[in-house]
Amino acid sequence: MAWWKVSAARRDVNPDLASERERPSFNVETLTNILDGGVEETRIRRAVVSLVIKDPIFSREYMYFKTRPERYEGAIRNTLHMQRKIKEMGWDENGREVKYIYRALNGELGLNIHNVFRKTLNALGSDEQIAKWMPLAMDYKILGTYAQTELGHGTYLRGLETTATFDPTTQEFIIDTPQITATKWWPGDLGKTSTHAMVLAQLCSNGQNYGMHPFIVQIRSLKDHSSLPGISVGDIGPKMAFENVDNGYLIMRNIRIPKENMLSRYSQVLPDGSYVKSGSDKINYFSMTAVRVSILRDEVLEALMKACTISVRYSAVRRQSELKPGDREPKILDYQTQQHKLLPLVASCYAIDFTIKYVNTFYNNAFSEIRMENFNSLPELHALTAGIKALATEICSNGVEVCRKACGGHGYSLYSGLPSLYTKVTASCTYEGENTVLHLQVARFLVKCFAAAQSGTPLPTSTAYLSSPSASGCQAATPIDFLNPEVYLKAYECRAYRLIASAARKLQNLVQSGVEQHLAWNSSSVELVKASIAHSHFLTVKIFISALNSLPDQPDVKAVLKRLCDLYALHGIFTSAGDFLQHGYLSGKQLDVVNTAYLGLLAELRTYYCLQLLQRKSQYDMMSVLGCSRFAPAVLQLC
Amino acid sequence: MAWWKVSAARRDVNPDLASERERPSFNVETLTNILDGGVEETRIRRAVVSLVIKDPIFSREYMYFKTRPERYEGAIRNTLHMQRKIKEMGWDENGREVKYIYRALNGELGLNIHNVFRKTLNALGSDEQIAKWMPLAMDYKILGTYAQTELGHGTYLRGLETTATFDPTTQEFIIDTPQITATKWWPGDLGKTSTHAMVLAQLCSNGQNYGMHPFIVQIRSLKDHSSLPGISVGDIGPKMAFENVDNGYLIMRNIRIPKENMLSRYSQVLPDGSYVKSGSDKINYFSMTAVRVSILRDEVLEALMKACTISVRYSAVRRQSELKPGDREPKILDYQTQQHKLLPLVASCYAIDFTIKYVNTFYNNAFSEIRMENFNSLPELHALTAGIKALATEICSNGVEVCRKACGGHGYSLYSGLPSLYTKVTASCTYEGENTVLHLQVARFLVKCFAAAQSGTPLPTSTAYLSSPSASGCQAATPIDFLNPEVYLKAYECRAYRLIASAARKLQNLVQSGVEQHLAWNSSSVELVKASIAHSHFLTVKIFISALNSLPDQPDVKAVLKRLCDLYALHGIFTSAGDFLQHGYLSGKQLDVVNTAYLGLLAELRTYYCLQLLQRKSQYDMMSVLGCSRFAPAVLQLC
Repeated sequence: MAWWKVSAARRDVNPDLASERERPSFNVETLTNILDGGVEETRIRRAVVSLVIKDPIFSREYMYFKTRPERYEGAIRNTLHMQRKIKEMGWDENGREVKYIYRALNGELGLNIHNVFRKTLNALGSDEQIAKWMPLAMDYKILGTYAQTELGHGTYLRGLETTATFDPTTQEFIIDTPQITATKWWPGDLGKTSTHAMVLAQLCSNGQNYGMHPFIVQIRSLKDHSSLPGISVGDIGPKMAFENVDNGYLIMRNIRIPKENMLSRYSQVLPDGSYVKSGSDKINYFSMTAVRVSILRDEVLEALMKACTISVRYSAVRRQSELKPGDREPKILDYQTQQHKLLPLVASCYAIDFTIKYVNTFYNNAFSEIRMENFNSLPELHALTAGIKALATEICSNGVEVCRKACGGHGYSLYSGLPSLYTKVTASCTYEGENTVLHLQVARFLVKCFAAAQSGTPLPTSTAYLSSPSASGCQAATPIDFLNPEVYLKAYECRAYRLIASAARKLQNLVQSGVEQHLAWNSSSVELVKASIAHSHFLTVKIFISALNSLPDQPDVKAVLKRLCDLYALHGIFTSAGDFLQHGYLSGKQLDVVNTAYLGLLAELRTYYCLQLLQRKSQYDMMSVLGCSRFAPAVLQLC
Repeated sequence: MAWWKVSAARRDVNPDLASERERPSFNVETLTNILDGGVEETRIRRAVVSLVIKDPIFSREYMYFKTRPERYEGAIRNTLHMQRKIKEMGWDENGREVKYIYRALNGELGLNIHNVFRKTLNALGSDEQIAKWMPLAMDYKILGTYAQTELGHGTYLRGLETTATFDPTTQEFIIDTPQITATKWWPGDLGKTSTHAMVLAQLCSNGQNYGMHPFIVQIRSLKDHSSLPGISVGDIGPKMAFENVDNGYLIMRNIRIPKENMLSRYSQVLPDGSYVKSGSDKINYFSMTAVRVSILRDEVLEALMKACTISVRYSAVRRQSELKPGDREPKILDYQTQQHKLLPLVASCYAIDFTIKYVNTFYNNAFSEIRMENFNSLPELHALTAGIKALATEICSNGVEVCRKACGGHGYSLYSGLPSLYTKVTASCTYEGENTVLHLQVARFLVKCFAAAQSGTPLPTSTAYLSSPSASGCQAATPIDFLNPEVYLKAYECRAYRLIASAARKLQNLVQSGVEQHLAWNSSSVELVKASIAHSHFLTVKIFISALNSLPDQPDVKAVLKRLCDLYALHGIFTSAGDFLQHGYLSGKQLDVVNTAYLGLLAELRTYYCLQLLQRKSQYDMMSVLGCSRFAPAVLQLC
């Protein structure tokens, strides 16, 4: 039939994509290198990805039809096979290849929390503890999980109810789940897999409570994997995604563990039960910060990058509706409304990528300092990672959903890849610190910095702007004025300053008028969250601009990235206009000009081959029939 | 063990809920009657719901563990059992009991599109056609689907490629899928179930194309259910939700159907192939409008109501973190940030409920007129249903996701009921008209009305405000001023007016400066969408206020609803502040006052027993361990 011949011919590149490729280009490879962090990184990443794609054991065929048990088994199989590969290739456990193979297999791995167990041991264990446990963990002779969250408490760590009571007569800790709300709930790898748990528990000794500390507790037999006496453990059931992970619950009834099982790099209990600290209180929170940083690139930003790639590519081949009566239906990417949905998200990928790199550098510096027992940068590190985590997870998960909806009905089919990206990435708004709670923690830091600024105390880098507020309004008048990074950065700075100042002053006024501190805080909290978002948003714009300034000198690539930076910044003003207008920094007229500049940028960026604005993703990465260049037939092939 | 005794004792009402019940109350029954639309409606609804809950065949046990085939089979079983019940009880097919049993079983029914088939037949079929097909459909002797959407075209109906070519020699139509993109894609009940399809196709006769018309095409044998020759039909695979629905694809290769199978109430083809019309062109779109209206209450608003109930109830028993150092952890509903997330959504339930009732009345009036061949109200009906559909689906699906996230980690578990509510309701943003496309259709209507207003032509009721713009800015100065409905309604009206005027003028200026009409339209489309949203948003506020004014005289209920109306309106100003500030209708200082009034309302509404603000839902309705009053033990019971 002629009909099928047409479709067979279409298996070549879609002509609509071919025509896109004739648009003005730039050195895409340089852009890729920038995202990867260097030429060598790109080379290694590609080599690893290609190895994964070719390996039949890592196949993702029929993924969207698999049951939970099949997904779990597949993930464990992937993990073990990956470990064999790593050994076979002689890759370093902390090396770049390993980072890339994790990212390539993202989502279909088991034993992820085993790594958190190891990281925690490494960060908070004494040298002897590391020497004892790490080899066992490295060889999978024990399988660990990190048991922090409870049925009754998540982000609020001080509220955890599990207790670890020291018994000096036997030199043991008694780990106990005193009531149902203290049940450990959510830890990954716990439901079926783990033999040992890093249990976060309230340390009690000599009748005193010393707060949350980590303890290694064996929960299952190393002989037959049955749960040990006093332990109730199991799977917590189906979730919105993460079908491959056995998130579990754990009840411990007076489990005795040796004194040596409390991680003791920074604090320990002496044989008589007295408690000795050798570092900041806050050090226990450090392993959480580490997880918070590590998820951002591989789990959160990666999801937005994939979603953008799928939806931009689809928008370049899907033709729909009409603009000029009688003309051929336009590509949907030619509609301003579609550009408005997708292109700011493409720009956000860069903003967040540069920000993550900045946070990583900051984190590594802080980590070195902490190793040398200098805890000065902890408050800023906490505020920075908390604020950026909350902002980036919000942008990425909302962004993935915008991409999904922008693909219309096809975005609702699992074959598009988009529903699975969303149902997974949205969890990041909750795990590793619920976003509203994190914003309020950042706000507490900002209010302190604001007060310090008032009294002339020097401030950490990220809040230095609170010392020198701008008195005047914005002077820009034309669209071109608003494409000047200094102009929009100042606007973001003033917005953040004024929202912080306004919330801090409200707080102060309430307290001065006799309202109790905690009630005043609560009554200001909606505004404090807004202030925290404005602060972190400002930081991302600032970091984007400074990344732009330190780029290698390639005019074509710089020009593209400059436009993306402008777009990111102006889109933020466009969508949060109220914040910029409310305190008069921008006038209504200036906002009209911003809008004109913003819409102009959309049209300008559309002149490029927009897919090249994103790092090339393989079909394996995206698991999407919309993301491949043979769209329509591929959809039917799956039927 | 003492431990388990504690948990057993907790199976009674949670003390935190008990304490909520001591808060100031109001006549909850009246509120319920208002939502239901009368005392008698409440009585019937409750009777139907209680019948459903008691019936073991309608059981939802283990729902979250079921596979797709199990969900499909369960839904078909539910449907057949429901039909038996309806007969047994002697309920009228179009009666209230049937409406409520559908709502109660929502989500777990099959053959839903069979009803769309019937509705279309009823609306567009001739009396003879109705007489022939309706009895077969009513008795399930044939199973229908509505095959409109294609692989290559969704909302843009004119782009559909399936053809129906009249052959005068045999007096038949030849239905054909000319290429792969013309494959029917998405119709519910098509994948496995239907025997007949209401196929929307381009009518071609004597070499001319007369646009889209509906044709009844048999696709499967009535003997053995095998697909007929020339038909390829099957399931389109897994989706983000709707596991119970067999959405399908359909390819038809030169299928011949008798001339009588084209629905011919308003247009037909004569034996010589000439085409005769006896009504408005737009009439074919009418059945789509009908569906659009019918989904709003039962599928879209119902989801938000359930999500609010689950999350408000959870927030009244979940205690977390601390406000005053040393005090007991507060209920999370006592945090201003949590109130800010949930209470405006509770208010939105009412705004949308009243709006749906308004749209229904409008629709019914228009339908009577159309039956009498008066099509005058079609443009306004289209704009009204399109705009409200787009706004309500957006508010409800975003709102459900806010509720889900507001329950933290537990909101991510399927047991909470929230993920399933979201993954299902979000589809409504796309089906029955993609929201951005709908907003642009509304904008086209608004621009026309704006031009008519300039030339003094009278306008339809919903856009009458475009004739008399307010010249001055807002005069309100205190929080109490902003609790005056006239004040905030005027603000919404001015916002809508100014956004419509600004987009219309931009469009006009571009055209006058020589830009082609279609390019000018596209360059203004982001602003046109904003204008459409502002218009529909204004209508919801207006309808809420007028519903308030026509309430029975019960001061306590009126006081509650007045606060919810205020909250709905001020929350909209708070979150879209830029629109209200940009053209100077509100000043930055006034916005501060609005914010104060808004935050004050949150605190005021919190003084109530907040769950009573929502219609009581059963555990059967919500399918949520968070929504029941024995939260923690129930979670564990499921393990």
